[in-house]
Amino acid sequence: MSIPGMGVEPRCRCSGTESKRIGRLIESVELFPPNPHCKETEIIATLKNTGQEICLDTTAPWVKKVIEKIMASRSP
Amino acid sequence: MSIPGMGVEPRCRCSGTESKRIGRLIESVELFPPNPHCKETEIIATLKNTGQEICLDTTAPWVKKVIEKIMASRSP
Repeated sequence: MSIPGMGVEPRCRCSGTESKRIGRLIESVELFPPNPHCKETEIIATLKNTGQEICLDTTAPWVKKVIEKIMASRSP
Repeated sequence: MSIPGMGVEPRCRCSGTESKRIGRLIESVELFPPNPHCKETEIIATLKNTGQEICLDTTAPWVKKVIEKIMASRSP
């Protein structure tokens, strides 16, 4: 699976991250904990409309907020 | 994309969730906030080895812990 800005297996998936705050464009967010191939946690967002996959900066406060917001919206 | 335990587009992806604690088997977790097709937040885990995708109970404390742990492991 080759995604722009991302390394090729078996290294890390992300080689660069999106710094702009794109929260509203995000359809889903995938979290990859560190694993034998990549010692970094990686967060990859899939965008609405285009389905484009973009690596997010795991240390950026807005990224953490996006995830917290999704988790908070889970209780009906 | 048809995943066991999951509805067919354009409704919700998940029709049932895994109750067993499978944290250690998880390779990645994808978070889907509510959207026009599905008013529920959905959390889908991809398992190590098999790559199987499984819907997780968004209200289960252990699921929240899995996500918090991934987020906490992000700072190098």
